[in-house]
Amino acid sequence: MEHARLVDAMEALVLDLQGAIVAAIEAADGAGRFARDAWQRPGGGGGVTRVLAGGALVEKGGVNVSRVHGPVPPRMAARLPGDGDTFAAVGLSLVLHPRSPWVPTTHMNVRLLARGAKAWFGGGADLTPYYLFEEDAAWFHGELRGACERHRPGSYAEWKRTCDSYFFLPHRGEHRGVGGIFFEDLGGDPWKELSLVEDVGRSFLRAWLPIAERRRALAWGDREREWQEIRRGRYVEFNLLHDRGTVFGLETGGRTESILMSLPPRVQWRYDHHPEPGSEEERLLQVIRTPRDWA
Amino acid sequence: MEHARLVDAMEALVLDLQGAIVAAIEAADGAGRFARDAWQRPGGGGGVTRVLAGGALVEKGGVNVSRVHGPVPPRMAARLPGDGDTFAAVGLSLVLHPRSPWVPTTHMNVRLLARGAKAWFGGGADLTPYYLFEEDAAWFHGELRGACERHRPGSYAEWKRTCDSYFFLPHRGEHRGVGGIFFEDLGGDPWKELSLVEDVGRSFLRAWLPIAERRRALAWGDREREWQEIRRGRYVEFNLLHDRGTVFGLETGGRTESILMSLPPRVQWRYDHHPEPGSEEERLLQVIRTPRDWA
Repeated sequence: MEHARLVDAMEALVLDLQGAIVAAIEAADGAGRFARDAWQRPGGGGGVTRVLAGGALVEKGGVNVSRVHGPVPPRMAARLPGDGDTFAAVGLSLVLHPRSPWVPTTHMNVRLLARGAKAWFGGGADLTPYYLFEEDAAWFHGELRGACERHRPGSYAEWKRTCDSYFFLPHRGEHRGVGGIFFEDLGGDPWKELSLVEDVGRSFLRAWLPIAERRRALAWGDREREWQEIRRGRYVEFNLLHDRGTVFGLETGGRTESILMSLPPRVQWRYDHHPEPGSEEERLLQVIRTPRDWA
Repeated sequence: MEHARLVDAMEALVLDLQGAIVAAIEAADGAGRFARDAWQRPGGGGGVTRVLAGGALVEKGGVNVSRVHGPVPPRMAARLPGDGDTFAAVGLSLVLHPRSPWVPTTHMNVRLLARGAKAWFGGGADLTPYYLFEEDAAWFHGELRGACERHRPGSYAEWKRTCDSYFFLPHRGEHRGVGGIFFEDLGGDPWKELSLVEDVGRSFLRAWLPIAERRRALAWGDREREWQEIRRGRYVEFNLLHDRGTVFGLETGGRTESILMSLPPRVQWRYDHHPEPGSEEERLLQVIRTPRDWA
């Protein structure tokens, strides 16, 4: 394997990140604990899925790492850049669905793929609020901006736009949330990219936890909960209809339960639901229909 | 339009079916009423969506008809059989999600497509129980079998197999439910096919209502409700990941709310959920993993 050292370094990074994030979320949650599932991939490699259900802060969340390798599966061959008959992929993927509708759902992912002579990183993080607190969106984006700009001046603005276009539901005319960053296949020195990816990964807790701490104690009732469950339906629609990682993972024989840990715990679909004009719920819709600059 | 008379006849049929089914379901429900939404398609045509939410028997359901026509949309051109720059499509599609976990969810669809010299019918009906009552599955299949065999001896067995392969979730190794029938593009005399499609459409109430009436009064609690909501998650996974009508409809600018009325009202996703060995819940899993002959 041409990129064995890089793959090893990325594996060490994602395992370290997983440990740090799991520990910090458990400490913040106070009640929930992450279960641990180690799994093997029949074709080569495996992963460790950490899932928390029924916490005080996090209603359902997962922080997964995997390192898989082996012959390129037939369904992957045409869609995976590079050439060569073997591949390796190392990544961390997390999704946290908070219990309180005031606390935004969040997702972060960093990954390295290698095939033949080619090795490339990708990743991103985004925020999906149920109610809009402008300072929360600005904070989240500001932390990610810092991580990006320290390594590649000018990158944040580009990856923010990429995130806005990626997390989009055309059939709803809505973005998934207030965005974040999304990047893939930067084409530079892979060891420099590894430090960028590390910085993005480490910025996640600074970006999300202060928001969660700020909003978790606010009281909420049936109205906020129903809105949250309806909006979670859009999260499901995006992940199953559009998310390349989800669809590609399921099609190429990825571990179903690890991939679908991203789906929210309780979800509602109502026919033709519209929030009241002028309500806070409608204010959220406006901002996810027309992305803003936050940082 | 080459097939104008056929399209008109199919439209008359689906409107008549819609009226009959809505009336019968309302009468059986006793509490819920179908709202009515008429909509226009910018490219030509439109439809009438009938949706019932919060009924006594039906927690959420829709019985939709549409008749659309016009220039073939670019994204449709390569995937739609026939040639010619214009198309017409007429169909009825229904999904009923019952409140009680003892009553199975059901779906039925009949449709006519025409493009240039080609006109072809398609349709089907299937049953998605949360608990297995063998006599219910046999009854549902028996009614459909009657409708098929009256018109095309030998067709039921074939369309039952087509249904089993179509309503399959590869990432779960599960079929959507206990099946039914599914057929498309039969290639015969279209007017004879119209009577077949009519018979399938009219058999729906006879196939499903007696089952619903038989099971609706059974008591249920949290255990059955949670299992129902978890299984509804599989319904969502199938419709968003695999159902051609849903994906094709959303991609080609169909009316989102009419298409997604098929999604259940309340759904749960739990990480790596497995029913207890020997339980009724596990008995259901066995039958949806290995389809049986029912009629």
